[in-house]
Amino acid sequence: MMDQLSNFPAEDDYGLNLSLVEAVLETVEQGSQQQLLSLLEPLHGADIADILEQISPSEREAMLTLWGREIDAEVLSELEEGIRDEVMRDLPDDLLAQAVRELETDDVVYLVEDLKEPQQEKLLEKLDVVDRIAVVQALSYKEDTAGRLMQREVVVAPEHWKVGDIIDYMRRAENLPESFYDVIVVNPLMHPVGEVRLATIMGAGREAPISDLMEKDFRTIPVDQDIEDVAYAFNQYHMVSAPVVDLEGRLVGAITIDDAMEVLEDEVEEDMNRLAGVGDEDLTDKVWRITKARFPWLAVNLVTSILASIVIAQFTDVIEAIVALAVLLPIVASMGGNAATQTLTVAVRAIATHDLTPSNAMRIVLRETLVGLVNGLVFAVIIGFVGAFWFENPMLGVVLGLAMIANLFVAGMAGILVPITLDKLGADPALASGAFVTTVTDIVGFFSFLGLAALMLV
Amino acid sequence: MMDQLSNFPAEDDYGLNLSLVEAVLETVEQGSQQQLLSLLEPLHGADIADILEQISPSEREAMLTLWGREIDAEVLSELEEGIRDEVMRDLPDDLLAQAVRELETDDVVYLVEDLKEPQQEKLLEKLDVVDRIAVVQALSYKEDTAGRLMQREVVVAPEHWKVGDIIDYMRRAENLPESFYDVIVVNPLMHPVGEVRLATIMGAGREAPISDLMEKDFRTIPVDQDIEDVAYAFNQYHMVSAPVVDLEGRLVGAITIDDAMEVLEDEVEEDMNRLAGVGDEDLTDKVWRITKARFPWLAVNLVTSILASIVIAQFTDVIEAIVALAVLLPIVASMGGNAATQTLTVAVRAIATHDLTPSNAMRIVLRETLVGLVNGLVFAVIIGFVGAFWFENPMLGVVLGLAMIANLFVAGMAGILVPITLDKLGADPALASGAFVTTVTDIVGFFSFLGLAALMLV
Repeated sequence: MMDQLSNFPAEDDYGLNLSLVEAVLETVEQGSQQQLLSLLEPLHGADIADILEQISPSEREAMLTLWGREIDAEVLSELEEGIRDEVMRDLPDDLLAQAVRELETDDVVYLVEDLKEPQQEKLLEKLDVVDRIAVVQALSYKEDTAGRLMQREVVVAPEHWKVGDIIDYMRRAENLPESFYDVIVVNPLMHPVGEVRLATIMGAGREAPISDLMEKDFRTIPVDQDIEDVAYAFNQYHMVSAPVVDLEGRLVGAITIDDAMEVLEDEVEEDMNRLAGVGDEDLTDKVWRITKARFPWLAVNLVTSILASIVIAQFTDVIEAIVALAVLLPIVASMGGNAATQTLTVAVRAIATHDLTPSNAMRIVLRETLVGLVNGLVFAVIIGFVGAFWFENPMLGVVLGLAMIANLFVAGMAGILVPITLDKLGADPALASGAFVTTVTDIVGFFSFLGLAALMLV
Repeated sequence: MMDQLSNFPAEDDYGLNLSLVEAVLETVEQGSQQQLLSLLEPLHGADIADILEQISPSEREAMLTLWGREIDAEVLSELEEGIRDEVMRDLPDDLLAQAVRELETDDVVYLVEDLKEPQQEKLLEKLDVVDRIAVVQALSYKEDTAGRLMQREVVVAPEHWKVGDIIDYMRRAENLPESFYDVIVVNPLMHPVGEVRLATIMGAGREAPISDLMEKDFRTIPVDQDIEDVAYAFNQYHMVSAPVVDLEGRLVGAITIDDAMEVLEDEVEEDMNRLAGVGDEDLTDKVWRITKARFPWLAVNLVTSILASIVIAQFTDVIEAIVALAVLLPIVASMGGNAATQTLTVAVRAIATHDLTPSNAMRIVLRETLVGLVNGLVFAVIIGFVGAFWFENPMLGVVLGLAMIANLFVAGMAGILVPITLDKLGADPALASGAFVTTVTDIVGFFSFLGLAALMLV
C-alpha cells in the first residue's frame, strides 16, 4: 500500500521540490557517493538533469565529480544544450564513451550533433561499429530534418507474413527498439506498404495474414522533410508513429509521437520567443551569452523607435505651443502597440497551425481591421473624455479620439498584413515581432495625433 | 508505384491546398453530393474540419446541407469550438445522434461538454446506455482535470495472468480501445500495480508470467489532477500512456500521449496569448466576439498608459523649455518595454516548464538584472551619441544615456520579478503581460529621463 501511495503525486508535485534539491546539495557537500546514489536512484533522468541545471556551476561540478563513474547517459540527453556541452567537456573521455554506449542511436545523434569535430570523432570511435555507422549516417542528414529526428531501429514484416510469423520473430529478436507501436509492412523493395498496430496483431489469431490486418492508408515521411512539418502532421492527424523513407521510397527509419511532441513544443516556444524578440537562448546561459542574444533585437528596436521620434520631431512647434500633446503621446503609442501585438500573435500562431491560409486570408484581414476599428471607436470616446477633462480642452479630446481611431484601425490591419506578407515572402512571420508592426503603429499614431493637433488646435 | 508516390508529401504539403478548397466549393455550388463525397473520401477528418473552418459561413451551410446524412462524426470533434457549436445547432437531432454514436466516449465528452443543458440531454438520451453512463460520469469530473481527458476504455490484466492469458483475452475481446500501448496490471482491488508494453508482451513466450514482465516503476494520475500537470508529466518523463486512478487508488481510465500533446500545445499557446493580451478566442470567431475578448486587455493598458502620462505631466515645464525631450520620450519607453518583454517571455515559459524554481530563482533574477544593466550600458553609449549630435546638445546625450541605463536595468529586474511574484501569489505569471511590466518601465523611464533633465539641463 505504501508503494501505491507514493505513486500519487499531489497537485503540482511533478518535477522537483526544493527539499530534494537541498538534500542533494547537502549530500554533495558531505561527499557521500553512496548517499547521493540512493537519492538519485528513484529519480527519472529528466529530473536529475533539472537538478543539474538548477544548481550553481560550482555545485554542479562537485555533484558530477562525486557521481563519478555511476553517471547515467540518459541524464546527458535530458540536459539543456549549454549545460550539456559543459558537462561533456568536463567528463573523462572513457567515462563519456561508456555512458554513450548505453543510449539508443537517436539519442546519441542528439548528443553529438553539436559537439566540435575532434570530440565528436573521438566519441564515435568508441561506439560499436553498427551503432557508429548508424550515427554517422544520421548526421549526414541536414539538421532539423526527419532524418535527424528518426530512430533507425524499426520492426518490419514482409507482406506475406502471418501474425504468427511476427510473434515468433519478436520472440526471437534480441534488440527490439525501445519504443514502437506499429509493425511496418514492406514489399521486397523495402517500400512501406502498410502499418499494423501491435494491438491489432495481438487481437488476431496466429494464422491471420498481415496483409489483411494492415492499415493501407497511412502517411510516410520523406527523410529530408522539415521537422516542423513532421510535428504538424503528427498533431493534425493524431499519428502515433510513421515510417520515414528515402528519396527512392525505401524505409530508413521511424518517427514516434514523443519525438514529434518535443518538436511541437519547441516550435510554439520559438514563435513565442521571436514575437518577444528573444533569440535562441537557454535558461542556464551565462550573462554574456544572453546579453549578446538579446542585443540585435533591441538594436532593431532602437532604429525603429528613432524613426518614430523623427515623426515627432516634425511637430516640435505644435508641442511647444501645447505641451499636453507630449503628455498624451505615450497613450497613443501604447494602445496602438498593444492592439497590434494582439492581432500579430493570433496571426502568427494561425499561420503556424495552417489555420490561416489563402482560402480565408481576406476574411480574416477584414475582420481584424474591423475589430481594430470598433475598439478604436470605443476607446476614442473614453480617451477623448479623459483628454478633454484633464486638460480642460474639448478640442484636444477630439484630436486624441480621432488619433486613437486611426491608430487602432491601422494596428489591426498591420498586425495581420505584416505576418501574412512575411510568410508569402518565405520569411518567418514571427520575425514581425515588435519591430515592424509597432513601428507602423507608432508612426501612424504620432503622425495622426500631432498632425490633427497642428490642423485643429494651433 | 503510383500509390506509393502519392504518399510523399512535398515540403509544406500537409494540410490543405488552395485548389482542393476551391474544388470543394465548386462542387458545392454545382450541388453534386456524389462528387463531394468522392472529394472528401480520401481526406482525414481534421482536414475536412479545416475546410469547414476556412470557408465562409454561407458556403459552410451549403456544404453541410449537401453532405447531409453522410456527415462524419469525427469531423465534428476536429472543429474549433465556435464553428462546432454552429454546426451542431444546425444539424437535425437524429443525424447528430447517429454521428455521435460512432465516437469513442472521450470524443463524445469533448463534443457535448460545452453544449447547453437541453441539447446535451437530448443527445445523451440517444446514446447506448453503457456509453451514456460513461459520458455522464466523465462530465461529473471538473473541467480541465484528468477525469475529463481520460479514455475510460482500458485493457487490464490481473497480476496472476500469463502472456498467453492476455493474448487469448485480446483475441476474444470485441471492443478493444482505439488506441492503447500498454496493458495495465491490477490487483483484486483494481489498484494498478504495473504496466506491460504491448511490445514486451509480444516479445515474450505464452508461459511468461505478467508479473515478471511488468514495469513496476510507473506513474499513476489522480482523476482530479489538472491537465496542465498531466501534460507536464508526459513531456518531462516521455510517457506514452498512464493509468488514471480515483481517490481510493482504483483504476478508472487511461490517458495517452496524443491527448497530452494537445493539452501541451494549448498551454503554450495560452501563455503566448496571455503575454500578448489575447484572451480565449478562435480564428473563426466573429468581429463582435473578438472585439469583446480583446477589450479588457486594452482597457487595462489604457489605465496603465495614463499612469505613465501622469509622470510626464509632472515635467511639463521642463518639456516646454527643451522640446527635444518630447521627441526622445518614445525611444526611452520603447527600449524599456522591449527589454522587459524579452525577460518576461523567458520567465513565463521557464516557470511553466518548471525550469525556474526556488532553487535557481535568485541566480536567474541576478542574471536578468545584469543582462539589463549590460545592455543598458551599451545602448546608453549609442543613444547618448545619437541624442547629443541630433540636438547638438552633449548634456542631453548624457541624460538620455543615463535614463537608458536606469530603464533597461529596471526592465530586466521587473521582467523577472513580476512573473515570479505572480506565481508565488498563485496567479498565472503570463497575466503579467504588457500591463504590469511595461507600466513599470514606462514610469521608471520617463521619471529618470525627465527628472535627470530637470536636474542637469534646465
